[in-house]
Amino acid sequence: MVVVMSPDATDADIDAVVNKVEYSGGEAFVSRGVVRTIIGLVGDVDRFHGLNLRAMPGVADVHRISDPYKLVSRQHHPDRSTVYVGESQVPIGPGTFTFMAGPCAVETPQQTLEAAQIAKAAGATLLRGGAFKPRTSPYAFQGLGVDGLKILASTRDATGMPIVTEVVDAHDIHVIAEYADMLQIGARNMTNFALLQAVGSAGKPVLLKRGMQSTIEEWLMAAEYIAQRGNLDIVLCERGIRTFERATRNTLDVSAVPVVQIASHLPVIVDPSHASGRRDLVVPLSRAAMGAGADGIIVDVHPQPEEALCDGPQALEGADLRALASAVRQLPPLLGRAPAEPRTPAVSP
Amino acid sequence: MVVVMSPDATDADIDAVVNKVEYSGGEAFVSRGVVRTIIGLVGDVDRFHGLNLRAMPGVADVHRISDPYKLVSRQHHPDRSTVYVGESQVPIGPGTFTFMAGPCAVETPQQTLEAAQIAKAAGATLLRGGAFKPRTSPYAFQGLGVDGLKILASTRDATGMPIVTEVVDAHDIHVIAEYADMLQIGARNMTNFALLQAVGSAGKPVLLKRGMQSTIEEWLMAAEYIAQRGNLDIVLCERGIRTFERATRNTLDVSAVPVVQIASHLPVIVDPSHASGRRDLVVPLSRAAMGAGADGIIVDVHPQPEEALCDGPQALEGADLRALASAVRQLPPLLGRAPAEPRTPAVSP
Amino acid sequence: MVVVMSPDATDADIDAVVNKVEYSGGEAFVSRGVVRTIIGLVGDVDRFHGLNLRAMPGVADVHRISDPYKLVSRQHHPDRSTVYVGESQVPIGPGTFTFMAGPCAVETPQQTLEAAQIAKAAGATLLRGGAFKPRTSPYAFQGLGVDGLKILASTRDATGMPIVTEVVDAHDIHVIAEYADMLQIGARNMTNFALLQAVGSAGKPVLLKRGMQSTIEEWLMAAEYIAQRGNLDIVLCERGIRTFERATRNTLDVSAVPVVQIASHLPVIVDPSHASGRRDLVVPLSRAAMGAGADGIIVDVHPQPEEALCDGPQALEGADLRALASAVRQLPPLLGRAPAEPRTPAVSP
Amino acid sequence: MVVVMSPDATDADIDAVVNKVEYSGGEAFVSRGVVRTIIGLVGDVDRFHGLNLRAMPGVADVHRISDPYKLVSRQHHPDRSTVYVGESQVPIGPGTFTFMAGPCAVETPQQTLEAAQIAKAAGATLLRGGAFKPRTSPYAFQGLGVDGLKILASTRDATGMPIVTEVVDAHDIHVIAEYADMLQIGARNMTNFALLQAVGSAGKPVLLKRGMQSTIEEWLMAAEYIAQRGNLDIVLCERGIRTFERATRNTLDVSAVPVVQIASHLPVIVDPSHASGRRDLVVPLSRAAMGAGADGIIVDVHPQPEEALCDGPQALEGADLRALASAVRQLPPLLGRAPAEPRTPAVSP
Repeated sequence: MVVVMSPDATDADIDAVVNKVEYSGGEAFVSRGVVRTIIGLVGDVDRFHGLNLRAMPGVADVHRISDPYKLVSRQHHPDRSTVYVGESQVPIGPGTFTFMAGPCAVETPQQTLEAAQIAKAAGATLLRGGAFKPRTSPYAFQGLGVDGLKILASTRDATGMPIVTEVVDAHDIHVIAEYADMLQIGARNMTNFALLQAVGSAGKPVLLKRGMQSTIEEWLMAAEYIAQRGNLDIVLCERGIRTFERATRNTLDVSAVPVVQIASHLPVIVDPSHASGRRDLVVPLSRAAMGAGADGIIVDVHPQPEEALCDGPQALEGADLRALASAVRQLPPLLGRAPAEPRTPAVSP
Repeated sequence: MVVVMSPDATDADIDAVVNKVEYSGGEAFVSRGVVRTIIGLVGDVDRFHGLNLRAMPGVADVHRISDPYKLVSRQHHPDRSTVYVGESQVPIGPGTFTFMAGPCAVETPQQTLEAAQIAKAAGATLLRGGAFKPRTSPYAFQGLGVDGLKILASTRDATGMPIVTEVVDAHDIHVIAEYADMLQIGARNMTNFALLQAVGSAGKPVLLKRGMQSTIEEWLMAAEYIAQRGNLDIVLCERGIRTFERATRNTLDVSAVPVVQIASHLPVIVDPSHASGRRDLVVPLSRAAMGAGADGIIVDVHPQPEEALCDGPQALEGADLRALASAVRQLPPLLGRAPAEPRTPAVSP
Repeated sequence: MVVVMSPDATDADIDAVVNKVEYSGGEAFVSRGVVRTIIGLVGDVDRFHGLNLRAMPGVADVHRISDPYKLVSRQHHPDRSTVYVGESQVPIGPGTFTFMAGPCAVETPQQTLEAAQIAKAAGATLLRGGAFKPRTSPYAFQGLGVDGLKILASTRDATGMPIVTEVVDAHDIHVIAEYADMLQIGARNMTNFALLQAVGSAGKPVLLKRGMQSTIEEWLMAAEYIAQRGNLDIVLCERGIRTFERATRNTLDVSAVPVVQIASHLPVIVDPSHASGRRDLVVPLSRAAMGAGADGIIVDVHPQPEEALCDGPQALEGADLRALASAVRQLPPLLGRAPAEPRTPAVSP
Repeated sequence: MVVVMSPDATDADIDAVVNKVEYSGGEAFVSRGVVRTIIGLVGDVDRFHGLNLRAMPGVADVHRISDPYKLVSRQHHPDRSTVYVGESQVPIGPGTFTFMAGPCAVETPQQTLEAAQIAKAAGATLLRGGAFKPRTSPYAFQGLGVDGLKILASTRDATGMPIVTEVVDAHDIHVIAEYADMLQIGARNMTNFALLQAVGSAGKPVLLKRGMQSTIEEWLMAAEYIAQRGNLDIVLCERGIRTFERATRNTLDVSAVPVVQIASHLPVIVDPSHASGRRDLVVPLSRAAMGAGADGIIVDVHPQPEEALCDGPQALEGADLRALASAVRQLPPLLGRAPAEPRTPAVSP
């Protein structure tokens, strides 16, 4: 069972609920989020029903959990949500199609700016770029760290594109949240529950990639970990799962898009670059994502893919990027989606 | 190494090649196809090169095999192929988008006709329907057999739609080929090499479904088995692979569409019904297939899905079918594909 | 529902059951096995119950099917079965541990005899060897066919070891059954239901390998197809499943051994050679199979693995084979199993 | 390239190496471990060779990395390692077989003590127990935290068994390392690289579970992350991977045991309880692990499995535990392994 406190609940209200639950023999776990506090109850559900918690001060709602996820479920929240990113409030959600692009890893100011410019010219309105990289090999390039964040921030100033960047260590969240507009949890950390809780409290929208070994249900439970901390500005990202097929790096599970949209109100986008690991598949898989009804895509671009320090073989450029730009303009409108423009005009560029 | 004989090669020409190979210490396997004969050589390739087989009477070509598949590879056949089905010659290939639909299993004349009519009204130009069903459980409904074929044939007469039906036993090919316009090899028989060779000799186009456990490379090698018998009228069909994900019956590997199109000249279509096993996913997955560049789709429809003897939960009807019809009209043209109309007007309907 | 006829049921008895079922609106599928005939009913179960079929002449039993498999289930057959192979009746089942070995493919009389001799010296009592090979590539060596069968038969005469060999085409069963003591269905044909039914009628014990993407439940349903034809002399063989792991060719699912033994009365053995594709893993995986309680193992051996035409990299020889022989002698007795010796002394060797 | 500093290298020695590398245009990443410091170099390897780093003060060795893992590879460390755990130094490695057991989650002092006592009576010499639990659902029991650690510590005092417990958040490592003898990284955190680095610096042996969708190579690279921080006291634990099979929770990849032992010098054990999720498979899978040559097993036991807060369905008790105890006594000695007794007698019990 979950007790959702109202935004103006006091500490005394919260303590009162906890005490009542514990006195009845149950356990209460308090999750203080940015916006609201949620109290998870473990124990005898029938006894909890007898406590009449809903009538206590500061309690907004009491849910009996039927799905293993609750806050992100569409069951009690039938309208699909839109998440707005950055000062300019770029939307991700139903009714729009959001094109996010940028270099896999931030390498230099020039490379990042050029990548952002070709992305923007192709129609992208959000900039992706890695400053802290999770690498399977400890001997691979691990990213520029804070220097990379600064490059991203100055690229945002130059282009007006809000920035999305990955968090790999809870220890870095504070500094990353200073620079970034959206925090990304990578596939390798989807079951790092401590990190999920930490970004849930960071006060920024979160891009949650699906673990390559995770079922859709587990992915939604990971989102629930973030939501429990009071942050419902979560965008899910399908990026391929592990199978026996070797023609692609991972197998893009495009069915995940409609499955998520049926089960959850959260927006869901697709990363065709990391799913396939092949540049020649990015455009057809992006179109497939549009066809499946995705709320957006996130794509690797690089001004000189052959010189990229990270995942060059999948970064788009030139003719492919023009083909993608054309698809982004043509297909989503057929399916009732407008391009995702900033809600408020960006200040600088 | 493979020796491709010309269509007018005589038995004496073939024997001469075999004798020369065997005399040199190699082995020669003769595959007599409907149109041409192919001789596969096993042994010392360098010695075979010294035989100058290309100069012998009746020899059209000699290929050194680099890919594990040769005849279906795009390497020596850069233009993508179109396969024409039925007397009315419905095309499947580049430039068109072919919509195939019908009941999973033929049950009664009325159910089959009604299914064909709603399929045709939605834009389908080929009729699918199972008369011989491969069922995992020996206690499940196994199809009507020859009676089912007769129902399919009379439905073709009534609607003008050529028919595609599955072969599960080489023993039945002769009778099925009498009625059907296209022979389907199901996922469970993709590695039944004897059956592949048998349909390769049957003189009808073949729809080859991907095994749910098979890599794309193995799928192309299965097509090669058919091609070796002289039949290159092969259409590949992606229908989902086995993974750990349980929200869908199988995981539609939509990447297989562009991967196949890069590697092979054969047309490739998608079966969203069997991939997902869920009616509510068929429309978005069909659109995803269109986006990925598929040459067509094959979809289960049933006039009363709730009464279907086989796979009712995935059969389309009503509003979903109208949504699909609309997508078939709108999306493929954006990607340069016309609806697949019969090349020659059908006679009867 | 399934009607099991008694061994002495007449054709008239069978027809009477079929007529009664069809008259009531149901369908009846007759499977005439070597030993008994089974009639599968499809339709309204409640109505079938009203027919009182159990009282009809020639009816031995009527089962309502709860498991998707019935005849191979342990539910109504709690004692685990032993299958006896060959004239000398080598047992496979509880209480014994059966070591089967031989070359992947029969190449020459000498290679086959030498392989049999080193296998026998290591403790093997059954000889495996492929005459008809299912090969993923149509350009790979496909086996010697009937010549291979003759080599196997003469090797049996020389060594006294009964022989197991694969069937890939129903068309060949008659000739293979003339020579072989046990018919093998390979992983690629586990869902070739026509072939399963054909070996079910061939009057020889069957070795049924698990499909590399088949669940254990599907494997037992494949066995049920064989059993339905009256042949319950079936031995299951786990040979690895497809996963994302690439260090081994397939992933040996050693858990399948106890899972099968809990669900079915049929014996189950393990093929560590094809599961791993690596010679250096065959001995540890064979020991793992013994530990898991397998009723036997089947292993590739070759006198000169580096010259094998098929799967040489996994064939055992020398020191590895001695280590395996030692494990076969030591481990199974600790778990209550004796070496599987022929029940009747072999005649010749 | 990796520069391994000697244990007595000074900060000035380290700085000198870093400066030389950076001056040459490369990048140097310093990993200060408990015992030694390692410097990873990224850039032009040929230029690094010209620097003659091996001759600099404080440099113990310079490795060119060929395998993606280096410190844990068997290539330069052919002898397999033994890891000693706790004050009493219980060994895990070649020549011994280590039986680790305990409750999945610590619930109460009594439950933990009883579980430890039945584990010890069955032959276990290390106690496992979870105080901080990584749970897929945020609404599941998350463990007792520090209270659980205290219960584990008092159980160690009472039984003399060193304790292994999981770390799920780098923030908790300090307090856990105060109580525990060995730190466990769970499957869900195998790619949480920040946590790997943190336990690498914690000065305690680490039990590293394989991610359920991680290849063996990735698992060894995860171990390399820990080793890079100077901690080579790492034990690997195979606990099942994700596949399509549903009869077991995960598929125990028993081949991983010999594959790891060929590739790495680190010990490797097996967790049959979490792999299968079924109590009735724990004993046969434990025996399979022994047969495969595992250096130990880790098993869930619970005095009243039916009342367990976590994973009760897989916890052993009674007859099964006696069967396991018997296997632990009998099988490993046949394969050259003694029971893993403490190297120094424990003080208290």
